[in-house]
Amino acid sequence: MVASLRLPSLTSLLFPATTRYPATLRRAVCLRNRPLTGFATAPSGTASPETKSTEVDRLRSDRAVTPRSQDFNAWYLDVIASAELADYGPVRGTMVIRPYGYAIWEAIQEYLNVKFKETGHSNMYFPQFIPYSFIEKEASHVEGFSPELALVTVGGGKELEEKLVVRPTSETIVNHMFTQWIHSYRDLPLMINQWANVTRWEMRTKPFIRTLEFLWQEGHTAHATPEEAEKEAKQMIEIYTRFAFEQTAIPVIPGRKSKLETFAGADITYTIEAMMGDRKALQAGTSHNLGQNFSRAFGTQFADENGERQHVWQTSWAVSTRFVGGIIMTHGDDTGLMLPPKIAPIQVVIVPIWKKDTEKTGVLSAASSVKEALQTAGVRVKLDDTDQRTPGWKFNFWEMKGIPLRIEIGPRDVSSNSVVVSRRDIPGKAGKVFGISMEPSTLVAYVKEKLDEIQSSLLEKALSFRDSNIVDVNSYDELKDAISSGKWARGPWSASDADEQRVKEETGATIRCFPFEQTQGTKTCLMTGNPAEEVAIFAKSY
Amino acid sequence: MVASLRLPSLTSLLFPATTRYPATLRRAVCLRNRPLTGFATAPSGTASPETKSTEVDRLRSDRAVTPRSQDFNAWYLDVIASAELADYGPVRGTMVIRPYGYAIWEAIQEYLNVKFKETGHSNMYFPQFIPYSFIEKEASHVEGFSPELALVTVGGGKELEEKLVVRPTSETIVNHMFTQWIHSYRDLPLMINQWANVTRWEMRTKPFIRTLEFLWQEGHTAHATPEEAEKEAKQMIEIYTRFAFEQTAIPVIPGRKSKLETFAGADITYTIEAMMGDRKALQAGTSHNLGQNFSRAFGTQFADENGERQHVWQTSWAVSTRFVGGIIMTHGDDTGLMLPPKIAPIQVVIVPIWKKDTEKTGVLSAASSVKEALQTAGVRVKLDDTDQRTPGWKFNFWEMKGIPLRIEIGPRDVSSNSVVVSRRDIPGKAGKVFGISMEPSTLVAYVKEKLDEIQSSLLEKALSFRDSNIVDVNSYDELKDAISSGKWARGPWSASDADEQRVKEETGATIRCFPFEQTQGTKTCLMTGNPAEEVAIFAKSY
Repeated sequence: MVASLRLPSLTSLLFPATTRYPATLRRAVCLRNRPLTGFATAPSGTASPETKSTEVDRLRSDRAVTPRSQDFNAWYLDVIASAELADYGPVRGTMVIRPYGYAIWEAIQEYLNVKFKETGHSNMYFPQFIPYSFIEKEASHVEGFSPELALVTVGGGKELEEKLVVRPTSETIVNHMFTQWIHSYRDLPLMINQWANVTRWEMRTKPFIRTLEFLWQEGHTAHATPEEAEKEAKQMIEIYTRFAFEQTAIPVIPGRKSKLETFAGADITYTIEAMMGDRKALQAGTSHNLGQNFSRAFGTQFADENGERQHVWQTSWAVSTRFVGGIIMTHGDDTGLMLPPKIAPIQVVIVPIWKKDTEKTGVLSAASSVKEALQTAGVRVKLDDTDQRTPGWKFNFWEMKGIPLRIEIGPRDVSSNSVVVSRRDIPGKAGKVFGISMEPSTLVAYVKEKLDEIQSSLLEKALSFRDSNIVDVNSYDELKDAISSGKWARGPWSASDADEQRVKEETGATIRCFPFEQTQGTKTCLMTGNPAEEVAIFAKSY
Repeated sequence: MVASLRLPSLTSLLFPATTRYPATLRRAVCLRNRPLTGFATAPSGTASPETKSTEVDRLRSDRAVTPRSQDFNAWYLDVIASAELADYGPVRGTMVIRPYGYAIWEAIQEYLNVKFKETGHSNMYFPQFIPYSFIEKEASHVEGFSPELALVTVGGGKELEEKLVVRPTSETIVNHMFTQWIHSYRDLPLMINQWANVTRWEMRTKPFIRTLEFLWQEGHTAHATPEEAEKEAKQMIEIYTRFAFEQTAIPVIPGRKSKLETFAGADITYTIEAMMGDRKALQAGTSHNLGQNFSRAFGTQFADENGERQHVWQTSWAVSTRFVGGIIMTHGDDTGLMLPPKIAPIQVVIVPIWKKDTEKTGVLSAASSVKEALQTAGVRVKLDDTDQRTPGWKFNFWEMKGIPLRIEIGPRDVSSNSVVVSRRDIPGKAGKVFGISMEPSTLVAYVKEKLDEIQSSLLEKALSFRDSNIVDVNSYDELKDAISSGKWARGPWSASDADEQRVKEETGATIRCFPFEQTQGTKTCLMTGNPAEEVAIFAKSY
């Protein structure tokens, strides 16, 4: 496939909104990645729309997507702009999620929402304004979150007596309410979830991966025993793991965080860690066993069966719009986005091809029938029948958008009652099959089979990429070699927090997790030579 | 039915969260309804959880729901507490939407989301932080919203250079982004929607109806011509109207707002006005034709087919969690909530009845089969099989929760292979039918028919209540009489804004709308005696 795809102007066919200006995005990010001291002088710099639109006009004529191998970050931002997934908001570090990006988030929501309800959780909604005093109640929580808070200090034209925190996460306000709803063991377990926006004043931002405001779901549960809470925390990381593998074709590694990397206020944090295309790790979801930390801070108690007051045992767990970034960086290539069929807002695009007006009617009518047949069978399909663009332009455009399958229908296909089917994941002729019958039952079966194949193939490819980039190490030197060659290092670890900190400072890598899947046999800590019970995975991360 | 229902303790059977403390709610609201001067001295008063829980313990033992006829406001708050729809958040004027209340909102979302997509709108997400300068760009917009703004002034521990507004509505930031996406007529129409939280620093709050933060959807569109924008604004109020009638059984009156009541920044505001059980009006949804007000303020332009730059024509439209309040206040009665089947999270509750353990197995097995049959047929059904509560307690509890139909199954019903079915909307024996066959196809058909009947019946009842409380008036005296007797007044109106203001000051009533449905014939303004083209509806409102 072409390494530098040139699209004359990305007037969206799916959604009316159109401009792409990757260079603007990149410029903005460079500004954001400047040293923190520089940032501190202009914390809420607002881009001026006037200068922006001039730049846009200059840039929108004809731009290429940076090849992934050349500059992964530039490629990522180009894809987000060209595939119209997101845009920067006017406030530094904020993001506008555009319809195509939001549709991916909706697919994530749809799947998880069902799983949460199946496992006994109810959705509800907590206010986003939290009294500042709440944040201070749990010692490690305030330490972890206070540098990142956005504060409302004025309301209705008046200075507020107590400043309000715009929720960075909801454990505190959840516990405040739980104290009012939980009285006896009969009120437990209490298992809820909310879909909400959260705010964390991040210094270095990147669309989807780390933004000032993002969307997520946060589950919160309270239990009568530590065993139940632990089971719940594990169940939720398991749901996330299955979601990642089966829906998004991301072969995450589930495991436990080190003490240093544990959530501010949790006893244990479970995580799913994904390897991006540049081999950096992405923490894609977490599930926390909070123990009694928040229930003690807030006095969330229940009377047990003997009438004794006990503090509840809690969990919380979340995935966010960051997952969309993970999908882009796992599967995308030089051509653009590549979406796993199960999560793709559009699974199949139909491009009709005609030259003469006499051909148009026949081709469009055949294309419509094919669309109808696929739609009826539950396939998410788009017919791109505009005559303002050439078929070649459309091919490029929909490849950029990552649509798993393309169906081409020309006059000769109409005569032979067949279509051409092209796979997004196999570039060029190798991925193209001619002469697939247009007959609905045959075509539908063929398309569904191909979509399944693509789904499996993307997972296998990501899995083999992941496994070929994890190195088993037995010494600190081996670990350093692995990290400096851009890989993940997996080795036995029982050293101190200080040693872990030293690895971070010297190599840039952190412990991503102690994976659930452990090798058998006796282990010797790679750092200290002491006996070790577990291997840890080290990697640089987002 | 019993006018003052006594429930020993409302341990929820559906959701584990439980407490009810209506008096606390009521006390809190009294505080909130104190004069604004009083409010201004303590704008962010945070209730102390310690004092609260003591009160709760004192109050939760055995409370009645205030009869609706005795004190509508107290009744409303009691129902919200007892049916576990919502709770106050720790910050004054904020609300926690509990699972049962949130499930009603989810039903609203589910229906509208489909309609929005069918009519060509895509969901997306805009940041909630808006630079203060944006709000100032549209003159009447800033005037309308500035008294209600919440401002973020500190982020990441630093004072911000430009304070940020927590979105009260998104027209400004939407236009800022639209300028970057819209270039030519080919980019139009641009039609989007977002589901989001919004913040308005309200002085007088009331759960669901008016809270500091609430949930809503806001649609935003841009068009090439004023005709298209007008058509869109009308289409959306029509969708809201149909939703209100068909799903929520609320016979809203759609119409146009007077100039004084038009949205800050709109040319025309369309509204749906609902009559609550106390005959006050509730504005339940609005759709605005924004003309070019925001596009001129933000420079949102496109090149038309002749290459000339034009400002786009825009609309915006919204419904919010306020609708849940509208449902409560339209259909509820002294027994509690009454939900229209189409919007009810649970349409049928099955209460098994047994005395001896020997009966239990047979009854529960029959109840499970009935549940299974209904569930398979797509009925939302709950089997309340706990043995911690008596059947009588369960009857009261689920009536309070407003479940449209109850199925009772006792040992004798098992022997006769039949069930007893009770309608929530017809109290006592009149709503109870014995001997309905348990045979799945018979029972399912019967239940579906009854649910449809209840849906229609609630609408008819609300419609006749509404119509019997609207008085046609032809003079200001008649208008004053109608308003002072608690009714709505409908009469010809062509008087000035000053006259409208005078009506408001003297009667407390405002023009709710000029209804789309107008009477024929010549009209004479009730205030001035001048010719009038339309009748207006006046009412006191929430």
